[in-house]
Amino acid sequence: MLFTRHPSNPLITPAQVQPSRSDFEIIGTFNAGVTRYHDELLMLVRVAERPVNDDPYRVLCPHLDDGGKLVIARIRRDDPAYITSDPRIVRNNTTGDVLLTSISHMRLAHSADGIHWTVEPRPWMQAEPPYESFGVEDARITAIEGTYYVNYTAVSQHGIATALVRTADFVHLERCGIIFPPSNRDVTFFPQKIGGEYAAYHRPMPGDLGKYNIWFATSPDMTHWGGHRVVLEASGDGWEAGRVGGGAPPVWTERGWLSIYHAADATNRYCLGAFLTPHDQPGRVIGRSKTPILEPSAAYETEGFFNNVVFTCGALVVDTTLYLYYGAADERVALATAPLDAILDML
Amino acid sequence: MLFTRHPSNPLITPAQVQPSRSDFEIIGTFNAGVTRYHDELLMLVRVAERPVNDDPYRVLCPHLDDGGKLVIARIRRDDPAYITSDPRIVRNNTTGDVLLTSISHMRLAHSADGIHWTVEPRPWMQAEPPYESFGVEDARITAIEGTYYVNYTAVSQHGIATALVRTADFVHLERCGIIFPPSNRDVTFFPQKIGGEYAAYHRPMPGDLGKYNIWFATSPDMTHWGGHRVVLEASGDGWEAGRVGGGAPPVWTERGWLSIYHAADATNRYCLGAFLTPHDQPGRVIGRSKTPILEPSAAYETEGFFNNVVFTCGALVVDTTLYLYYGAADERVALATAPLDAILDML
Repeated sequence: MLFTRHPSNPLITPAQVQPSRSDFEIIGTFNAGVTRYHDELLMLVRVAERPVNDDPYRVLCPHLDDGGKLVIARIRRDDPAYITSDPRIVRNNTTGDVLLTSISHMRLAHSADGIHWTVEPRPWMQAEPPYESFGVEDARITAIEGTYYVNYTAVSQHGIATALVRTADFVHLERCGIIFPPSNRDVTFFPQKIGGEYAAYHRPMPGDLGKYNIWFATSPDMTHWGGHRVVLEASGDGWEAGRVGGGAPPVWTERGWLSIYHAADATNRYCLGAFLTPHDQPGRVIGRSKTPILEPSAAYETEGFFNNVVFTCGALVVDTTLYLYYGAADERVALATAPLDAILDML
Repeated sequence: MLFTRHPSNPLITPAQVQPSRSDFEIIGTFNAGVTRYHDELLMLVRVAERPVNDDPYRVLCPHLDDGGKLVIARIRRDDPAYITSDPRIVRNNTTGDVLLTSISHMRLAHSADGIHWTVEPRPWMQAEPPYESFGVEDARITAIEGTYYVNYTAVSQHGIATALVRTADFVHLERCGIIFPPSNRDVTFFPQKIGGEYAAYHRPMPGDLGKYNIWFATSPDMTHWGGHRVVLEASGDGWEAGRVGGGAPPVWTERGWLSIYHAADATNRYCLGAFLTPHDQPGRVIGRSKTPILEPSAAYETEGFFNNVVFTCGALVVDTTLYLYYGAADERVALATAPLDAILDML
């Protein structure tokens, strides 16, 4: 394989992290954005929690009310009004309304070497109503001209959307609201303006016609987005028959912008692929992996909260090596490395 | 009823209009945007056409290939690979891919009095690949500072999106591409900047969580949109149990911005409602119709290509009267009028 899994994998697991409340337990620490900050590395880890549940006859669904107070719906597993067979979601048969069985927040983690990470004991950013009532998920961090832009998935009864928060110091946060309305997630920003505009990939999830493909967009200010066009379609090959979506924010290389993306097959097995675009034409793909560059095979990838998932939200270039951080089985943070040249040669 | 149907209804029907090709027939002339232009009124009518079909065993699906050439898929009605029972859509059982049984373009119509309309013999704007391969639908026209902005639904295998074209004279068109990515339609622009920004309502169609509600957004330039937030949710009452969506572009009144929107119930019966927002807070609803302000009851509304539909894309204020143009049964253009004060008193 192109990538070498780090022997310390998984780097972060739920057991290492404190829940945000004493009545919660952590079911996942995964899908982490990563960046350099001064002389250390920072990660924003998705921490998924659920209420400790001693009642085998009920499923508990934590969410925020309109005032931001945590409420827990306690739904009987045998209630014919609800479908409770999916471990992640409870659906009302009549209204179609959905609740989640967990709620996620963002947790900051620090590292000097990229291998050993210290996860802060308290949340860095928690969900707020109305657009995050079911949680905030899958942060990506992009440093642009001294500001750190953190985009994330805002989940609520209003849909799955992408929101933005920015910070200069990871202490003071400025919330910028919804930047891609539902259904849209897996947004990745370019770390510099291109042709005078900010640029991003995004992944609409059409409710009717259309597939889950990667689109390109531009912005004058990081909050208003336009110029939408399709960049990368799911190839239809086995490993990306279902969907594709952005992974790590694009990495500048001498040969162009390198993007690591995810793809899922018909059974929801998530692999990673890569594509390359010219420096000045980030909407035009000039190279693309024909087979996965990373696929679930280690035990911590094949078994967990959701089996057979590798999913990235961030990568770093260290000298000539790509450090690819990824969520494993929707439960842990792991690391794989590969020579940058070897990846580019393949595309 | 609040509204009076015009005795000349329907104002425009397929029989009055020439197909764009000799091998096509028109199945609908409906959902028309309207504006004042110099000393006349203009309408952009959605003209839905399909290939003339003498073969009862096949359904024909017109669409554009990547080069813009019209191709017609001829699908056997008994082919088990396809679902052909919906008169509007053919779906591939295996891939989920969809084709439409008609393709729409925009046709310009002229009127001196708002009642008698002359429809031009040729298309005003036709679909272009890749985002309009299945057609262009439901134009709204908004005059802002001397430019006419025409937003419309761009339908293709990439999804149902909203695109923009602008013109100063209805002769020279500038295409501005996709402004709201899939799935999103029923966009209505405000006819002036508010707080220094352009403003619009839009209607995302979430593919997963979330309902079909009306959102608000702002833009610095009419092509990049942000500041997304929910404005109007389907009430859940019978007539708007299914969805709500923008109708006519907002109309300035002394009491605030008046918006006529559409709502559909669980059986896809489409009615019209109204809501009011403050001049300086177009994202905040201060009045809303509890019952439909117009619902399908005339024969030309209850029977047609799609039964039981009234759907507006444009309205004009003439002295103290609202002229509401609407698509009837997805087949014809009709007109209903009401005293503006009576509508506002109800909200």
